[in-house]
Amino acid sequence: MRLKSLGSQIILPPRERNIIPELVSLLVLDFDGVLTDDRVYVNQHGEETVAAHRGDGMGIAQVKKAGIEVIILSKEKNPVVKARADKLGIPVYQGIDEKGPELISILADRGISSESVVYLGNDINDLPCFSLVGLAAAVADSHPLVIEKAQLVLSKNGGHGAVRELCDLLLEKN
Amino acid sequence: MRLKSLGSQIILPPRERNIIPELVSLLVLDFDGVLTDDRVYVNQHGEETVAAHRGDGMGIAQVKKAGIEVIILSKEKNPVVKARADKLGIPVYQGIDEKGPELISILADRGISSESVVYLGNDINDLPCFSLVGLAAAVADSHPLVIEKAQLVLSKNGGHGAVRELCDLLLEKN
Amino acid sequence: MRLKSLGSQIILPPRERNIIPELVSLLVLDFDGVLTDDRVYVNQHGEETVAAHRGDGMGIAQVKKAGIEVIILSKEKNPVVKARADKLGIPVYQGIDEKGPELISILADRGISSESVVYLGNDINDLPCFSLVGLAAAVADSHPLVIEKAQLVLSKNGGHGAVRELCDLLLEKN
Amino acid sequence: MRLKSLGSQIILPPRERNIIPELVSLLVLDFDGVLTDDRVYVNQHGEETVAAHRGDGMGIAQVKKAGIEVIILSKEKNPVVKARADKLGIPVYQGIDEKGPELISILADRGISSESVVYLGNDINDLPCFSLVGLAAAVADSHPLVIEKAQLVLSKNGGHGAVRELCDLLLEKN
Repeated sequence: MRLKSLGSQIILPPRERNIIPELVSLLVLDFDGVLTDDRVYVNQHGEETVAAHRGDGMGIAQVKKAGIEVIILSKEKNPVVKARADKLGIPVYQGIDEKGPELISILADRGISSESVVYLGNDINDLPCFSLVGLAAAVADSHPLVIEKAQLVLSKNGGHGAVRELCDLLLEKN
Repeated sequence: MRLKSLGSQIILPPRERNIIPELVSLLVLDFDGVLTDDRVYVNQHGEETVAAHRGDGMGIAQVKKAGIEVIILSKEKNPVVKARADKLGIPVYQGIDEKGPELISILADRGISSESVVYLGNDINDLPCFSLVGLAAAVADSHPLVIEKAQLVLSKNGGHGAVRELCDLLLEKN
Repeated sequence: MRLKSLGSQIILPPRERNIIPELVSLLVLDFDGVLTDDRVYVNQHGEETVAAHRGDGMGIAQVKKAGIEVIILSKEKNPVVKARADKLGIPVYQGIDEKGPELISILADRGISSESVVYLGNDINDLPCFSLVGLAAAVADSHPLVIEKAQLVLSKNGGHGAVRELCDLLLEKN
Repeated sequence: MRLKSLGSQIILPPRERNIIPELVSLLVLDFDGVLTDDRVYVNQHGEETVAAHRGDGMGIAQVKKAGIEVIILSKEKNPVVKARADKLGIPVYQGIDEKGPELISILADRGISSESVVYLGNDINDLPCFSLVGLAAAVADSHPLVIEKAQLVLSKNGGHGAVRELCDLLLEKN
């Protein structure tokens, strides 16, 4: 289902709330395009900067307080991913070319059952994780194939509050 | 009430102008999401940059000239908040986790009555201040709960002229 | 008159083209909000960065080639204004608090008649120049008072091609 | 033809797919306005930064894997162009004032026939290349003259996934 931007109204229609797992123990976030708008600022020396969202940070803090673990799973190798993860105080798995096997290994290591995992992605390399989790979600401006496969498409774009929107939905339910 | 973007027309409908206090002595601004678009640019070393708005700066200068004090009240600890405040020439209270008690203490210290205070926020940690002031205002792209509780919702987004819009409204009335 | 974004069609309706002076010898550009989107990126050390537009740069180069002088007239003192002017290869007058008297003095020094001058602005401190020139133009996202006073309101926003749009109109006519 | 943003649906109508050459051997990309949103971030020292798109990078990687060469052809001299090209792992020809002759020479050197070349541009200095290739494409926010001359106008803007959109179209066909 695709959420619409509803301003101050209730975000998820009541009869659709069962899409959110009863018990969420882990929220897995892709980095570029999810915690950012998928853009990268490159300077003359090739150094990279990305634009994150303070509201997303507040949502992640609330979700963690509520006992849900949050991690970043990213293909990107640049240290900018870890720099943001450190500020958010969450673990990061980066430079991951095959996200599916990596996620399976993470869940096994932590003894987490897949039904209690929520994954938020935006591009085709996130698709292998979609079938491994309890809820596969996508930001509003995801790649068309990701929109097609996601169980839940948020109303907000990556880097513009999509993570916060998902955190609010999880907190409302859990 | 929620303002609409009206281009070159009068911004606030005449009968709604009584929402602005007769005498405004202090304008309190949240930082991220109000003086910025709530985004933070993070580089490889974790250093932060934010995007402020020159038009907001001009509005703040006009409001100060008209005798209204302006301060920033922010949860964020990063020195980027003070850097912008210094350019604007206004005091900053940052790293504030509980904004309500802090605002009460600021008003007491300065001997300012709450009815003459205007507060502009965008996120849930601004809500405790809403009941402590004469006018509780929100930028257009605030969190849904903030939109719901604000007495006045501006037509412009944070970091894109919302502060200027509020300054214009204060100057029009005072 | 207010231009609409017309894609690949002719931009200025034929009967409105007489709004452009027959002979343009000088194009005066405000900086923030005209050559930029009025935003300023501030880092932890208070250093400023602005976002200019390559397409604007190409328009300015064409206009100069056609024999029209281009200058920047800005209130802002920060060296970022000169940095961009240098790249564009045009003179800059910055730190100007009263733009009206400064423009009068510039025109006198250069022996330029006011009717041949086009001014592009976005905020209230540009208004004193509007009555001193042959064509007073404003970017689409100008302050409401500037929209009201401008003879020509471009279809594009500052920092997003408004300067290029004006350059194209001047070249079409001259 | 002009593509519309169609979300998760098939992007190019089936009967229009013959606009894509049967065999594409080279994809030529302009830089500013194509791999970026045509904006340039300038700091106090005149150093430049641009905003590229991770999704574009993923599209370029896929296209290369499929055996299509990708190069950048840019007027801009600033080292930021090469910095991004290096990250993408593609050759760059920059500081090119006359793109037409340069492209002819590139094709001759590599022994590539013009019908198998796709060119993606956004501004008037790209026009001389349009008649030299098998498919002349433009980003959605190109200059009006470029929109007019392009055989294919993408639904996405430069720096916001236009390159990825074109890569997806090439992969779908080839």
